[in-house]
Amino acid sequence: MSSSPATDNAENSSRADRKRAAILKAAQEVFFANGYVGASMDQVAASAAVSKQTVYKHFNNKGALFREVVTNVVRARDAGITADFFNTSEGSFEDQLRDFARFFLKGVMQADVLRLRRLVIGEAARFPELGETFYDLGPKRATEQLATALRETSVRKGFILNDPEMAAEQLLSLILSIPLNQAMFLGEGHVFTDAALDRYADEGVRIFLRAYT
Amino acid sequence: MSSSPATDNAENSSRADRKRAAILKAAQEVFFANGYVGASMDQVAASAAVSKQTVYKHFNNKGALFREVVTNVVRARDAGITADFFNTSEGSFEDQLRDFARFFLKGVMQADVLRLRRLVIGEAARFPELGETFYDLGPKRATEQLATALRETSVRKGFILNDPEMAAEQLLSLILSIPLNQAMFLGEGHVFTDAALDRYADEGVRIFLRAYT
Repeated sequence: MSSSPATDNAENSSRADRKRAAILKAAQEVFFANGYVGASMDQVAASAAVSKQTVYKHFNNKGALFREVVTNVVRARDAGITADFFNTSEGSFEDQLRDFARFFLKGVMQADVLRLRRLVIGEAARFPELGETFYDLGPKRATEQLATALRETSVRKGFILNDPEMAAEQLLSLILSIPLNQAMFLGEGHVFTDAALDRYADEGVRIFLRAYT
Repeated sequence: MSSSPATDNAENSSRADRKRAAILKAAQEVFFANGYVGASMDQVAASAAVSKQTVYKHFNNKGALFREVVTNVVRARDAGITADFFNTSEGSFEDQLRDFARFFLKGVMQADVLRLRRLVIGEAARFPELGETFYDLGPKRATEQLATALRETSVRKGFILNDPEMAAEQLLSLILSIPLNQAMFLGEGHVFTDAALDRYADEGVRIFLRAYT
């Protein structure tokens, strides 16, 4: 008994989804192992156990494939900061900021996000479009979301925020920069305990609130 | 008429110094153009117009040569913050901090320092010793100097600084991170005016002082 055309379509589409996911996973490993310049579509196809044509069916070229890898990794760590995050969560504004800071810092410090960040920075002089992709999906998006959230909170709580975008960038710098800078230079052997990361997050929030509220 | 042995020695030594400087300059260009892995001692020798033996006479291997390039570039931008910088300079503490912040940020944002920073970060997973060299001579050294200066100033001015090293790292994050992060990702086409950099420096100092004093 043959399956119906509708079932066939669903099976084809889920098979295509699985292949796409396998290609992305393989591509991430190949980029991490060989860098952007050193990676080839052949290696990705071999590692994903699909044909090179299949890779090209899903991704037009190496640049498009890399963009999807970045999107995948960076989006998975999305801060998810919405304008009413500080409105609806429980606890004081300081508690809420601290929760956000701890959560966001740990996302940014995940090994695969750090690896991708190093890779993109290393190639940014030759391939600025790779850096732009990472910057737009990661730091820029987070800054914009946080700026909106801080602006609305400042109105509600009655503190003065002349330049919400600058304030958001300063808060992110205070939370992230110290451990992130170390991680960029000192490689994968240099690891942080959760307690150490929490301390940077908490201290960053403390300084931000002392300055702004 | 032959020159005296003393003159010969001086000439030999200044010729050796010139060769060493030429090799370092050539090496910097070769590393920037080809990355650490892609650079060879042969290219450096050709570009400096010396023999490969001469390169090896001055620098044991590629790692040692790279270390010297980093030392050269990073030291040239040394903050030169000494413990009594804030003691002996004229103007208010805020003026002094702002002078330091503007000066230091512009040093860090020099094109060759940015290039080297991207290169080192890109290689930090494979060659953590390169990242360590940069980190120790650059960010770590600046943090230590600034922590000492802030501690002494806090005693003299009577404000409370429980953890001078954390405070120094936070101040450097506030001054540097926003433009530096953009520069890392967006490549050499993304340039900042002096006025834009001064604004980041001034705002960083302002937030730091509001939080700490």
